[in-house]
Amino acid sequence: MLFWLRNYRRELLSGDLTAGIIVVLMLVPQGMAYALVAGLPPVAGLYASILPALTYALFGSSMVQSVGPMAITSLMTATSLASLAPAGSALYSAMAAQMALIAGVVLLLCGIFRLGFLSNFLSRPVMSGFTCGAAIIIAVSQLKTLLGGSLSSFNLPGASIGAGSLLLLWLARNHLPALLKRLGLPAKGADILSKLAPALTLLLAILVIVKMGWLGQVALVGPIPAGLPGLGIALSLEQLRSLLLPALLIGFMIFLSGQSAAVTLAQKRNERINTDQELLGLGAANLASAVSGGFPVTGSISRSAVNQAAGANTPLATLVTAGLLAIILCVPTGWLALLPLPALAATIIIAVLGMLDFDTPRLALRHDRGDALAWLATLAGVLLLGVEEGVVLGLILSLGTVIARASRPHIAILGRLPGTEHFRNVERYPVETLPHLLMLRIDAGLFFGNAEVITGQIMHAVQPATRQVLLVMSAVNQIDTTGLYALVELNRNLARQGIQLHMSEVKGQVMDRLQHSSLLLQNLSGKVFLSTAAAFSELFDSAMHAPDSRRAAD
Amino acid sequence: MLFWLRNYRRELLSGDLTAGIIVVLMLVPQGMAYALVAGLPPVAGLYASILPALTYALFGSSMVQSVGPMAITSLMTATSLASLAPAGSALYSAMAAQMALIAGVVLLLCGIFRLGFLSNFLSRPVMSGFTCGAAIIIAVSQLKTLLGGSLSSFNLPGASIGAGSLLLLWLARNHLPALLKRLGLPAKGADILSKLAPALTLLLAILVIVKMGWLGQVALVGPIPAGLPGLGIALSLEQLRSLLLPALLIGFMIFLSGQSAAVTLAQKRNERINTDQELLGLGAANLASAVSGGFPVTGSISRSAVNQAAGANTPLATLVTAGLLAIILCVPTGWLALLPLPALAATIIIAVLGMLDFDTPRLALRHDRGDALAWLATLAGVLLLGVEEGVVLGLILSLGTVIARASRPHIAILGRLPGTEHFRNVERYPVETLPHLLMLRIDAGLFFGNAEVITGQIMHAVQPATRQVLLVMSAVNQIDTTGLYALVELNRNLARQGIQLHMSEVKGQVMDRLQHSSLLLQNLSGKVFLSTAAAFSELFDSAMHAPDSRRAAD
Repeated sequence: MLFWLRNYRRELLSGDLTAGIIVVLMLVPQGMAYALVAGLPPVAGLYASILPALTYALFGSSMVQSVGPMAITSLMTATSLASLAPAGSALYSAMAAQMALIAGVVLLLCGIFRLGFLSNFLSRPVMSGFTCGAAIIIAVSQLKTLLGGSLSSFNLPGASIGAGSLLLLWLARNHLPALLKRLGLPAKGADILSKLAPALTLLLAILVIVKMGWLGQVALVGPIPAGLPGLGIALSLEQLRSLLLPALLIGFMIFLSGQSAAVTLAQKRNERINTDQELLGLGAANLASAVSGGFPVTGSISRSAVNQAAGANTPLATLVTAGLLAIILCVPTGWLALLPLPALAATIIIAVLGMLDFDTPRLALRHDRGDALAWLATLAGVLLLGVEEGVVLGLILSLGTVIARASRPHIAILGRLPGTEHFRNVERYPVETLPHLLMLRIDAGLFFGNAEVITGQIMHAVQPATRQVLLVMSAVNQIDTTGLYALVELNRNLARQGIQLHMSEVKGQVMDRLQHSSLLLQNLSGKVFLSTAAAFSELFDSAMHAPDSRRAAD
Repeated sequence: MLFWLRNYRRELLSGDLTAGIIVVLMLVPQGMAYALVAGLPPVAGLYASILPALTYALFGSSMVQSVGPMAITSLMTATSLASLAPAGSALYSAMAAQMALIAGVVLLLCGIFRLGFLSNFLSRPVMSGFTCGAAIIIAVSQLKTLLGGSLSSFNLPGASIGAGSLLLLWLARNHLPALLKRLGLPAKGADILSKLAPALTLLLAILVIVKMGWLGQVALVGPIPAGLPGLGIALSLEQLRSLLLPALLIGFMIFLSGQSAAVTLAQKRNERINTDQELLGLGAANLASAVSGGFPVTGSISRSAVNQAAGANTPLATLVTAGLLAIILCVPTGWLALLPLPALAATIIIAVLGMLDFDTPRLALRHDRGDALAWLATLAGVLLLGVEEGVVLGLILSLGTVIARASRPHIAILGRLPGTEHFRNVERYPVETLPHLLMLRIDAGLFFGNAEVITGQIMHAVQPATRQVLLVMSAVNQIDTTGLYALVELNRNLARQGIQLHMSEVKGQVMDRLQHSSLLLQNLSGKVFLSTAAAFSELFDSAMHAPDSRRAAD
């Protein structure tokens, strides 16, 4: 904790200061916008960006992570609370905080019990499909606000502000960096400056509204209470109960999003992320959000990337950002009240459109059709069934894919490359085989997902002339209890037909376990050979002289 | 379908006839008892043993499977319906049939879409823990009936019948086969005869009740309507809706139980089970149960084993059993009414105690501690949370174990065994290494569950002197889209440090995919070598002469 502070060097300071200032300019509109996505008053988004960020700086393991409101968790907060509390009510805000509380506690517990491996539960295509679905839902939900805000269903000044902001932001995202570079800015500076487009667009929108005399015609954010949030949380056991399941799902997505952002940036910086430490950091951040008027928060890849690009070296940058944000809330906040909702909607839409990812499904389509299908199914699930259901569906699809793949394991019948001690697939190489000896290389670990399929394939490969089966175990990285039983059963069934079972090239870690449980080795009808070559030469002789003890299958 | 009938040979007939007769003697008490477990009138258990068995004989793929009521699915029927309909009501029976209907439709759909791999979703330890939990729940639920039936909470005649039957059945199970063998019977015959102990015990119990004048004092099964069940089913969309989720879980267990029984017997007979065909057979059987006054059914390993041991060669044995059962229902059924409930409870308790399995956890404890924990957690989950919850927990534990294991992949740093072309783990063998060349053997397929962990381990293994990383891919059986992205990222991060990435011994099926998606191969900073030896000799030279382009990690 705070190990970065103990080794802080003075030359890191300027980078941290610059990054802290730039991120706060990005965070003010983004925090307010994501609070709106979550169905909360805009100020909640600012609250959720102060204490949680500070807490993460204390407990998290990433040097440049920016923790605060994020698109997906905000959307999940909104969809979970939609049926539980009236939008905009005090109950709604209280339950949003409780949701952060539960998610925080669960994340802390997972961290304490070192369940960091949970971050490996969703495949990248499934996560991509989920993100695309969430982005589309958020973008569509903002269309009404974009076209006139909440004053009436459609009004020309509001729609002009919305459409104008959208156009500006779109141009900024796609052409501003190139333009700035042509004007002589270094590439990195141009990229960072273009990230401030939302803040500048919002200021411009305020100017236009005041100049055109549209005040009262365009929906505005409205009064923002000045001062820091009070600490505390309203608790109701009944409400906590009803929030348990959605909070678990949000907690899962908080971890996946935060962890993935932290890892992506750490790889670029050649640093390592401690997954269990991340759970603690994100858990503590959500507890902090819960008690300071916030809602579920996580690491934002877009803000964190800007933080890092702007020069952040340590979490001090985050402390600067949080400090500036606190100052903004403590000085008069009247100017924030003028922010037009249609322009905020435009920033949300541009932000989430940036989350759309079609590269992953395109690559998956070429590399692994099952992954492409999983992407499509998750996307469709989020859009048709709902966001929470989408997470569960994604989990099922990710894990289901593992078992589905395992149920088509690859097994090669081997022969000897003439004159060598190499044994290769009979279908790919001109190799020598012995009629009495069936050599099979199992190209998969034996576990419950494939154990029965593999032993079935082995039995199927047995020929009438077979007297010896040799399993080449060089690619078998693990054998679980189900796999062990399947091998014991295979040994018994082969013995019943008068066929001996041998193994070769069993890996050290696999052999250790087989020796410890001893069931298979005690009953094995054949031998365990160190190398396939040794097995081949010994079995060459024995196969030639073995009595024909095979019975017909009856 | 019915392919066994087209090739029927006369010499198979006597075995099929004998088995058919023996199984019906076992089925009458068992069917009625499991109907009681399901909370249904005893006759429903007989109905569920006629048409479903015939239907399975038409569509299933096992030659000796006995389809009908089974302990676990009966328990699940009871726990699912407990909160939905009053026990013993017509609604309860109707909903039990609807549950079989939904499960049947789902199983049929799974069969049509060839989802047979679903049978690989639970590990053996999890299935064992689930079965033990279900057995304990069933045994406990029968204690009240055993000690006096439903006439009053406790009555001496009832308790005597119950306790006496329990003792007899226990003795029969543990000592009868040995006794019969000592009396000169062949082992197989002794085993089969001892399976008829429940039927004989029930007859004896009736005799005792009549002789002792206990009629009216011991709870009896009561009138059994004579005749075959009418065909038809009462349908309500609302009821079907409320049954959907539990029926899905029951359908899953129907498939797991039936498939596992079919496979166990097929292995002994050296036959193959077609998993998708099993789904169709079990699905059709449940539809048949639904329309003939039954409830969810599946293959019973205990009855099927007796069927096979008694000489069944083909599903004709099942046709004989079903025919005899139909005859029993069509002749006067008054004698069935006299069956005492405490004795039936005793048969249930003895049957489910036979399902307790402590060998699996004991072996798991020695072979794989995680599997032993999963057994215990599933058992505890079933007992503490409930049966349906136990299935879901088992699923989570099975699949979670896969990811948890994947998150601790094995990676070996390799060196050359002096004077050979063999490369082995530096920690286990005295090998030669090159300071500039890091050779790593990845002992796992690369997929979303381990991709990030593996690339993290590789980055961690890089030393300051490292200029070349060679990944030995002989044990990498698959690379999914997430794994592909991780390798691309690894290649980029290594290149940023001036380190080249090479691969060797990439398997055929993996290489095909990498070539098809091309992303990695296009950008790979190094080469793909056929063998590690070729890589070693080429990189030996290049590493010696490469310019020092490595930057310090900044």
